[in-house]
Amino acid sequence: MLTEQDKLKKIAGEKAVEYIKDGMKVGLGSGSTVYWMIKRLGERIKQERIVVEGIPSSNKTAEWAKEFGVSLTDFSRVTELDITIDGADEVDGNLQLIKGGGGALFREKVIAQAAKQLLIIVDPSKLVKTLGAFPLPVEVLPFGWEIISKELKELGADCSLRKQNEDIYITDNGNYILDCQFSEIKDPVKLHNELIHKVGVLETGLFIDMTKTVLVGGEELRVIEK
Amino acid sequence: MLTEQDKLKKIAGEKAVEYIKDGMKVGLGSGSTVYWMIKRLGERIKQERIVVEGIPSSNKTAEWAKEFGVSLTDFSRVTELDITIDGADEVDGNLQLIKGGGGALFREKVIAQAAKQLLIIVDPSKLVKTLGAFPLPVEVLPFGWEIISKELKELGADCSLRKQNEDIYITDNGNYILDCQFSEIKDPVKLHNELIHKVGVLETGLFIDMTKTVLVGGEELRVIEK
Repeated sequence: MLTEQDKLKKIAGEKAVEYIKDGMKVGLGSGSTVYWMIKRLGERIKQERIVVEGIPSSNKTAEWAKEFGVSLTDFSRVTELDITIDGADEVDGNLQLIKGGGGALFREKVIAQAAKQLLIIVDPSKLVKTLGAFPLPVEVLPFGWEIISKELKELGADCSLRKQNEDIYITDNGNYILDCQFSEIKDPVKLHNELIHKVGVLETGLFIDMTKTVLVGGEELRVIEK
Repeated sequence: MLTEQDKLKKIAGEKAVEYIKDGMKVGLGSGSTVYWMIKRLGERIKQERIVVEGIPSSNKTAEWAKEFGVSLTDFSRVTELDITIDGADEVDGNLQLIKGGGGALFREKVIAQAAKQLLIIVDPSKLVKTLGAFPLPVEVLPFGWEIISKELKELGADCSLRKQNEDIYITDNGNYILDCQFSEIKDPVKLHNELIHKVGVLETGLFIDMTKTVLVGGEELRVIEK
C-alpha cells in the first residue's frame, strides 16, 4: 500500500515522463520520486517504441533503469543531455534546492549541469520558504574532513559525519558526507560560494540557479516555473 | 651521483628544516625536494632529540618519514599544523604557485591550508615570470570528466587525461587528473575561481596567496618573502 506521500511522489514522477521525447538523452536522478519516473518511462519505451538513453546518478538508479528497460549510456559517449529529471529535499521560492539526502548529490549535480534542462519532481512537503531546516549535505575529502567540520561549526552549522549503521557512510565517489544543520540559510548563493572554496569540500547539496521548472505532486499537479 | 639540480634541491630542502622547532606539528609535502627535507629532519630528531610530528601528503612521503624516523600523526588528532613544507612546479613573482606535477596536489593543499605557515622549497628552475608553461594539474571526478575536459578546451586549455604507462592515473583520492596547458595564466586568481566552480572539478594545482616564503636552492640560498 502506498502512503499518501508516495502517491504524490508517483504523480509528480509519472508526469515528468511527458517531458521526454523520442531520441532524448536523459539524466536520471536518484530517490523515491525518480523511481516512479523511471518505471513510467520504461512503460512508454515499450508501448511507444521511443528510443531514450539515460545516464544514472547512482547505482540504485542504474538498477531501476535495467529493471524497467531503460537503456543506459555514459559520458564517454554523450557529453550533453537533453533533460535531467531528479527529486529534491527542499525547494525554496526562488527554486533554489537542497539535495543529497540520499547521498548521490555529486553525480546528481554532474548530470544536472550536463543537461539543457533540469526538471525537479517533488511532493508538496519539500516546498519551503527558506532553505535549511533540512541539514545541508556537503561531500568532503576523507583526508582532513575534521578541519572542514570545525570550520563549518565556526560558520554556525552543527555538522555530523554521516553514518550507515555503525560505519562511516562512503559516497559512490569514495568520500564522506557532512550533514550540516544551519536551521536557516538566508543567502544560499553566498553559502555555496564560501563552502566550495574550502580546501577539502568537494561539492555541496545547494543547487543554485539550476532549475526553472518544478513539478509538485498533488490532487492537481502543480507546475512552478521561473 | 647527484645532478646539479638535485644539489640545489638538497640545499633548499635541508635549509627548510631550520624553520622547524621542537614540539611542532609539520605538514610534509611531496616530491624530490621534500625528500631532502625529511632526511635532514630525521637527522635533527636523532641528534637533538626534538619531538616533531608530521602529517604526510602522499604515500611516498609517509614511507620516507618512516625510513628517516619522523613520527606521523593525522587529522583525527591534530587540526592545526605549525608549518607545512612543500615543493612547487612553478613560482611566480607574487608567490602564486602551480603544484601537482607529482599528483598529490589535493592533499598538499589540505596540509598547506591547515598550517599557520607554508614554506615552499624549490630549485631556481621553478621560478617563472608568468605561470602556465607547466601544465596545470586539475583533479576531477571520474564521473563526467569528459565534460570538464571539453569545457577547459573552450577556456583555451589543451587538456590531457594523465596516464601512467597505459592506464589512467588515479590519485590517492581515487580521482583523475587533467593536465591543462594554458601556456600563460595571466590571472591565476580568476582562473582558479572559474575552475573550482565547475561541477566535477575537485581541486586545482593553483595555490593562491598560500605562501609568503620561498627558499630557492643555490650556491647562496635565496629567501624570497612577500
